[in-house]
Amino acid sequence: MEQKPFDVAIIGGGPIGIACGLEAKKKGLSYVIFEKGPIVNSLFNYPVNMQFFSSSEKLEIDHIPFISKEAKPKRDEALEYYRRIVTNNDLNMHLFEKVLHTEKEGNTFKIKTDKARYMAQNIVVATGFYDLPNLLNVPGEELPKVSHYYKDPHFYAGQKVAVVGASNSAVDAALECWRKGAKVDLVIRGKEVGQRVKYWVRPDIINRIEEGSITAHYNTTIKEVKENELLLNTPKGEQVLSNDFVLALTGYTPNFDFLEQMGIAFSHDEKKRPVYDPDTMETNVAGIFLAGVICGGMETHKWFIENSRVHAKRIMEHLHTHRSLKAS
Amino acid sequence: MEQKPFDVAIIGGGPIGIACGLEAKKKGLSYVIFEKGPIVNSLFNYPVNMQFFSSSEKLEIDHIPFISKEAKPKRDEALEYYRRIVTNNDLNMHLFEKVLHTEKEGNTFKIKTDKARYMAQNIVVATGFYDLPNLLNVPGEELPKVSHYYKDPHFYAGQKVAVVGASNSAVDAALECWRKGAKVDLVIRGKEVGQRVKYWVRPDIINRIEEGSITAHYNTTIKEVKENELLLNTPKGEQVLSNDFVLALTGYTPNFDFLEQMGIAFSHDEKKRPVYDPDTMETNVAGIFLAGVICGGMETHKWFIENSRVHAKRIMEHLHTHRSLKAS
Amino acid sequence: MEQKPFDVAIIGGGPIGIACGLEAKKKGLSYVIFEKGPIVNSLFNYPVNMQFFSSSEKLEIDHIPFISKEAKPKRDEALEYYRRIVTNNDLNMHLFEKVLHTEKEGNTFKIKTDKARYMAQNIVVATGFYDLPNLLNVPGEELPKVSHYYKDPHFYAGQKVAVVGASNSAVDAALECWRKGAKVDLVIRGKEVGQRVKYWVRPDIINRIEEGSITAHYNTTIKEVKENELLLNTPKGEQVLSNDFVLALTGYTPNFDFLEQMGIAFSHDEKKRPVYDPDTMETNVAGIFLAGVICGGMETHKWFIENSRVHAKRIMEHLHTHRSLKAS
Amino acid sequence: MEQKPFDVAIIGGGPIGIACGLEAKKKGLSYVIFEKGPIVNSLFNYPVNMQFFSSSEKLEIDHIPFISKEAKPKRDEALEYYRRIVTNNDLNMHLFEKVLHTEKEGNTFKIKTDKARYMAQNIVVATGFYDLPNLLNVPGEELPKVSHYYKDPHFYAGQKVAVVGASNSAVDAALECWRKGAKVDLVIRGKEVGQRVKYWVRPDIINRIEEGSITAHYNTTIKEVKENELLLNTPKGEQVLSNDFVLALTGYTPNFDFLEQMGIAFSHDEKKRPVYDPDTMETNVAGIFLAGVICGGMETHKWFIENSRVHAKRIMEHLHTHRSLKAS
Repeated sequence: MEQKPFDVAIIGGGPIGIACGLEAKKKGLSYVIFEKGPIVNSLFNYPVNMQFFSSSEKLEIDHIPFISKEAKPKRDEALEYYRRIVTNNDLNMHLFEKVLHTEKEGNTFKIKTDKARYMAQNIVVATGFYDLPNLLNVPGEELPKVSHYYKDPHFYAGQKVAVVGASNSAVDAALECWRKGAKVDLVIRGKEVGQRVKYWVRPDIINRIEEGSITAHYNTTIKEVKENELLLNTPKGEQVLSNDFVLALTGYTPNFDFLEQMGIAFSHDEKKRPVYDPDTMETNVAGIFLAGVICGGMETHKWFIENSRVHAKRIMEHLHTHRSLKAS
Repeated sequence: MEQKPFDVAIIGGGPIGIACGLEAKKKGLSYVIFEKGPIVNSLFNYPVNMQFFSSSEKLEIDHIPFISKEAKPKRDEALEYYRRIVTNNDLNMHLFEKVLHTEKEGNTFKIKTDKARYMAQNIVVATGFYDLPNLLNVPGEELPKVSHYYKDPHFYAGQKVAVVGASNSAVDAALECWRKGAKVDLVIRGKEVGQRVKYWVRPDIINRIEEGSITAHYNTTIKEVKENELLLNTPKGEQVLSNDFVLALTGYTPNFDFLEQMGIAFSHDEKKRPVYDPDTMETNVAGIFLAGVICGGMETHKWFIENSRVHAKRIMEHLHTHRSLKAS
Repeated sequence: MEQKPFDVAIIGGGPIGIACGLEAKKKGLSYVIFEKGPIVNSLFNYPVNMQFFSSSEKLEIDHIPFISKEAKPKRDEALEYYRRIVTNNDLNMHLFEKVLHTEKEGNTFKIKTDKARYMAQNIVVATGFYDLPNLLNVPGEELPKVSHYYKDPHFYAGQKVAVVGASNSAVDAALECWRKGAKVDLVIRGKEVGQRVKYWVRPDIINRIEEGSITAHYNTTIKEVKENELLLNTPKGEQVLSNDFVLALTGYTPNFDFLEQMGIAFSHDEKKRPVYDPDTMETNVAGIFLAGVICGGMETHKWFIENSRVHAKRIMEHLHTHRSLKAS
Repeated sequence: MEQKPFDVAIIGGGPIGIACGLEAKKKGLSYVIFEKGPIVNSLFNYPVNMQFFSSSEKLEIDHIPFISKEAKPKRDEALEYYRRIVTNNDLNMHLFEKVLHTEKEGNTFKIKTDKARYMAQNIVVATGFYDLPNLLNVPGEELPKVSHYYKDPHFYAGQKVAVVGASNSAVDAALECWRKGAKVDLVIRGKEVGQRVKYWVRPDIINRIEEGSITAHYNTTIKEVKENELLLNTPKGEQVLSNDFVLALTGYTPNFDFLEQMGIAFSHDEKKRPVYDPDTMETNVAGIFLAGVICGGMETHKWFIENSRVHAKRIMEHLHTHRSLKAS
């Protein structure tokens, strides 16, 4: 009944988790990928019309060509691409299985999911950052009219929608909803539309604001969400806004609690960068590795598929050599 | 504070409800459309890749051209089409507002929604039939793994999915999920794939079954849904199936309770056809009219957009003449 | 055998010509549209992947909704839209029939096409500007490797393509061909990429040039086109470029000869604006009207569908009133 | 100045020619691919809206995933797929270069193209069958209104189009043109729509014929094509048809002259199958190999990408072994 431990357990079934699985397989390592939802769960939860900022080449893993009709691929093409890689390569992926807890005993990790228990010699954390939305922390945030994820603009046609945020995702949602016939208020904490908004989108939103199609509330925060209204804190004092839906798109935070529970150390500043060796991607906990956006801590805009797909190769080469040495 | 009654209140914001609103507006009648969800809520809840069986001309209302690239339009094109009609014509549509109760007082109806109270001289019921799924009525149906609506095949990639039903929607879901890498069991009460399945789809599913890509269980029903299994009643006795998700796509029933509460009478057979005058669409309750699929009772395949869009014109012409006569 | 003259003959079956036909029909005027190619011939000859700069609302004629999935529609959607308007309204359009000559006799125009002869009381010229490409006027321009129209980037994959021009169409062609694997040289007469290139495209081409993906030759013209080479006049003297294809995308000129043959007068500057009354769109020749981009003379960037669709209404209202007065 | 001969010259840059190039490269053979047009020239010339009958997996070469959104991919997706393979693998492909003549001298082939001369130890003929259309051989076939290739239905909107043929391509063209507003006559030599027309298309065309939307002329051939008319030989005698365009889609024949010039022998029946060894694909001429549809002679429906992609591997393995033996 003794189960042989996996050489490596990969937590997260996004593009980088899949890349890790592919590399592990190539190196002859035994592996399992745990994903709490469907394949590439985060992409699946992206807005339905979402278009990437990068050309498809930059989203490729393992040199498998990502063929897209447009210069920049869309969500549904990316879902096809990553899913086909998983199914074509018959990757050992446990879907809809969430890792709850890990514990090191000697050189082996015990892993507890919401379905079973496993053992592994090594763990790769490739969980991304999309799980925990930054909250507004105001009364009424729990109402069903408030969402921290944006999906489909048709839903909001003819409705009064407040979009909170000034980043790419907030601006995209505001433009899309307005185009489909929503009345959009954009609630921005700072004094302008974010500087990191893409150069081909920024003039578009600014033109819409200037012509009065979308109402921007600068230097403004939400004080309270009510059934049919919003209370705003504005430079001119409190303001009441008639409102049907709130899209609070103010960013996401990696699941630091989970990393801390594993014993991973962090930088002591507000960036909260996890400690790891950039050559091997190994953290302060021997046998636990990081891959993808999680490496950046709070700086979730630093790592993309494009510059972190190399993590997979780095980790698995290290494990392969390491294991060979141990075995000999 | 006395609110003037609307000439007509339309319940249901699908294509036929919208057609009724357009006709009412043209005839100069005061009107309101109540829709419990977003514009064309039922279409919005269709599978994301859904393609209509009809050419786009047959989905048109009020001779407004529905321009689609393909011979047969897709869900997202239909959402665009109907939404643009609502927003272009500035139709008076109350979205996300569910009618709970209506009551006749003299010649006026009192209408209670989950948001407010209204009065109207006439009511059109255009609620479609998609609201109440036919249940399996077996233990375990309440588990989150069971769904009566199918949305997106990617979700099921790599999973064991049982599709219950033999109609177009069940067959489409089975084929799509299989194509995206699900292991599909098709559970069919009768002895074959439904005869009403479209001629270009039926050979496809039968070929997939014969080649063993999809497993069909004929003359079979579900006995119980368990966490990781299904119990089946088959001609050879009880069978256990390893299973992750159940898509119970066994059809839908119009909300007869709501019609009955309004006082509408039905045929006494199993077809449960509501009583109405085909020339005016008026029911046995003076001032309550029917439009669209609801006219067919249990026979939900008899009325389509194509043959029921004329209801809108018929009703509003009648109301227009009738009102004029009353006024004079 | 006497043919009754049309109230109005419309030359050109593009969006504005179609708009004129629709308005003529509504006003009860007898009309014919002559188009030398298929419906909306110019759009048909646009690059296959071409995307408009405008939202679909701005391309609409006669308030018929143009429903497009994207914020900005593509060529194939526009073809659908305009063609459906022609076929739905059964417009009297003579396709593949080129007007060769017109002549005024009394108050009637005699029109000679390459198929037959016609008479009309009035003529609307809605011929656009896309017919006559501005030539390079260099040796070798007649070689089959040189094209003044760009269609499909796949054709150029793996080939050495010189794109001549610095405007939107040249830049779009250069980017598309490079993305599909062509080696692209951009030959620009001036010192930079055109200032009228759209804000969301300009940084893209400049980045490609700076990273060396596309080679820009500024202050450069073509001296001669040879079978496998181009001779360039550059600031550093003559340069030889290995070359397979030339896309000379240096703009188009309206067919002034045709207008002159009709007797239409022009401004005497280099803008060559035809003379017309902006209230009625009538030219110096009574009974000849202008509609669309042709009004701008050499300034082909001044008039779009968006701001010239009103010409149709203006002309037909004038003709309607005028004819009524004459008749009474 | 002596050029070293290529190990193998591949004639034809379609999917199978590309597969041959990939395999040659993998085996370390020196190779060149000659293609008289752009990459996958035949696909490039397919109708713009063409959809394959096969799922994308069946169009894949070298196990490179072909990711398509629909169950069955379209022409533009296939162009992307094959082009990306060529450019990603930097295949040595001479585009727009037509092979005119080959001659064997000793063990070496001399190859003359319209651009240069080459030498090769072996030749693979992968030229497909799409080059030579089967002619009508009637007066007027040379008129510009007659085409043996069908491209885009928009071109024919509002026109009277005669489609000649009863196969998949004729039926697809007839349906597409009719949907875009053409008046379509289908001229069929036999007594019915072809039995090989796909099961999901055949009922569609038959319904259109029965409802009178498309006119089918059975047991009919064209006698003469005139400027504005067609003369038909029908069972009821000669008939005159008003007509603007003729699409003669009666199939294609491989270029047998070219094969004969190379010295390749054929079966003596009407199937005209070239002689080759199915294990190595070598013809009666040592060093000349066949790949793809060309193997079937007149039976151009026997070989598809799906069942002939293996030819590439078979040939190159043979050459690799053969060359190694010779070298040792």
